[in-house]
Amino acid sequence: MSATEPYVAVIGSGSAQTAAESLAAAEEVGRGLAEAGATLLCGGLGGVMEAACRGAAGAGGRTIGILPGGARAEGNRWLDVAIPTGLGEARNAVIARAADALIAVAGAFGTLSEIALALQMGKPVVGLRTWELAQDGHAVDAVIAVDSPRAAVERALELGER
Amino acid sequence: MSATEPYVAVIGSGSAQTAAESLAAAEEVGRGLAEAGATLLCGGLGGVMEAACRGAAGAGGRTIGILPGGARAEGNRWLDVAIPTGLGEARNAVIARAADALIAVAGAFGTLSEIALALQMGKPVVGLRTWELAQDGHAVDAVIAVDSPRAAVERALELGER
Amino acid sequence: MSATEPYVAVIGSGSAQTAAESLAAAEEVGRGLAEAGATLLCGGLGGVMEAACRGAAGAGGRTIGILPGGARAEGNRWLDVAIPTGLGEARNAVIARAADALIAVAGAFGTLSEIALALQMGKPVVGLRTWELAQDGHAVDAVIAVDSPRAAVERALELGER
Amino acid sequence: MSATEPYVAVIGSGSAQTAAESLAAAEEVGRGLAEAGATLLCGGLGGVMEAACRGAAGAGGRTIGILPGGARAEGNRWLDVAIPTGLGEARNAVIARAADALIAVAGAFGTLSEIALALQMGKPVVGLRTWELAQDGHAVDAVIAVDSPRAAVERALELGER
Repeated sequence: MSATEPYVAVIGSGSAQTAAESLAAAEEVGRGLAEAGATLLCGGLGGVMEAACRGAAGAGGRTIGILPGGARAEGNRWLDVAIPTGLGEARNAVIARAADALIAVAGAFGTLSEIALALQMGKPVVGLRTWELAQDGHAVDAVIAVDSPRAAVERALELGER
Repeated sequence: MSATEPYVAVIGSGSAQTAAESLAAAEEVGRGLAEAGATLLCGGLGGVMEAACRGAAGAGGRTIGILPGGARAEGNRWLDVAIPTGLGEARNAVIARAADALIAVAGAFGTLSEIALALQMGKPVVGLRTWELAQDGHAVDAVIAVDSPRAAVERALELGER
Repeated sequence: MSATEPYVAVIGSGSAQTAAESLAAAEEVGRGLAEAGATLLCGGLGGVMEAACRGAAGAGGRTIGILPGGARAEGNRWLDVAIPTGLGEARNAVIARAADALIAVAGAFGTLSEIALALQMGKPVVGLRTWELAQDGHAVDAVIAVDSPRAAVERALELGER
Repeated sequence: MSATEPYVAVIGSGSAQTAAESLAAAEEVGRGLAEAGATLLCGGLGGVMEAACRGAAGAGGRTIGILPGGARAEGNRWLDVAIPTGLGEARNAVIARAADALIAVAGAFGTLSEIALALQMGKPVVGLRTWELAQDGHAVDAVIAVDSPRAAVERALELGER
């Protein structure tokens, strides 16, 4: 594996209470990225991040976690590489910066911040049942909505091509 | 002035093409914060940030800009304090972290990231014609929508009380 | 006061056990900066930082603290502006970046990191009984050694002129 | 490979003018880390960083670069993982934070900042012909001086054990 493959970030809630269907979708996204030879980047914690990593790991893919805290041990068990940054929420900007494309699966405010930071940087963001954005009552279709993990992987790889 | 006054961040687009009504609203928000004795925190650049600073400065208030780049000179002319961070977009997290409350005036993706980072940190965010959020077709009313600069200032000071 | 005055960072140990002579020197540096109309930037905590702020505040000067943690309350009582960054040690780079010149008073490893980051950025660093650097047994005179607080202030303002 | 192996950062100048003996030492350090099954962490650029990565890659080891800029392409060609942070010099703190131990090979001010940040965090730092530190005319032996790449690897792995 090398540093020239596509890096796709999978972003979503780290909560253990994440809905089962989101976890299943994340796992399938992770598996799909691995099968396509992409590196999975994420925030390294639980919930959607862990599910995506598990999916990638099961398919022999590579997983990288950019952690908010200072200890590698806070990363989930499916990470090949864990980078504890000690930056707190500012690490969300590092995830967006390091990714060629992002796939958001549901998610709370941290996920929304990663979506927004990525869009600010001009990176493609694909969404599965995630945040819907509007201004003045009009939808802002900046996040590319897809309806399956397979479509999420395909669109992310296509749009993230460098 | 001291470090114990309320710090309210005014966030919004830095673009010179920002709508005149957003600039007018930002200026009035800045004036209102100054009159209430609050310190205005912002990203230090143009557009909404500059308009808010101008309003605050005109009313004798204090203005602080947390800049993304490395040079103080990139700050607008109404700043009392300019902190060039050199952090790029990660400085959005510093703005959210340093504020007791935030007021979003319209805004693009950078503003959305600051809204989301602040919500992730549990900070109150008041919005004037800014991003509307939803998931699964249901509005997520995390940003407190107000319909006037005066109401924005009142709500931010009330909710940001420490 | 405005954002165009010189910003001089005073860096040194935050420890309550800092030697009395270092605290006295820091206080005099703070006073001198205030009398010269400069803004004092620092890490916002105790020890040398607090002594410098006390000196500046006593002479009517302006003090800014860039804090490593997430709460303004961790700043010392002499700060006019406290910016909690939530960045941990990475905030040391923000201090170096935001300063026109730095004055190191004694100091431990955190201070050494700020000296080094500032030198990496090409900023002038003046030292009072602080770190001495060498490579291959040869002194590296990158820090401008002075022997009094007055000289420290003079050299920092002279070298930090923009 | 997994996230639980030792992560040892090799820090040093990124300059193409780095002395040949430093590059040779860095390459041997990289090779030694790979042979010991450690992951090599670095700033991802040229000079000492690239030499260390080349050494590790030649021995089948894993290399991670934490880049200051925003583009993966600025990383050297021997990186398995490149993380562009967009944080500028603040990324030096991430390198120190993510490492279990650091090996400094010669180096300029950026290297000195990484040494200092790591010492501030309580991480072991081993040095090969690198910065020598003193205060008040007395050497401060915080960097563990060794006289061969082999000794550097041994000491770093021993001290970085978690």
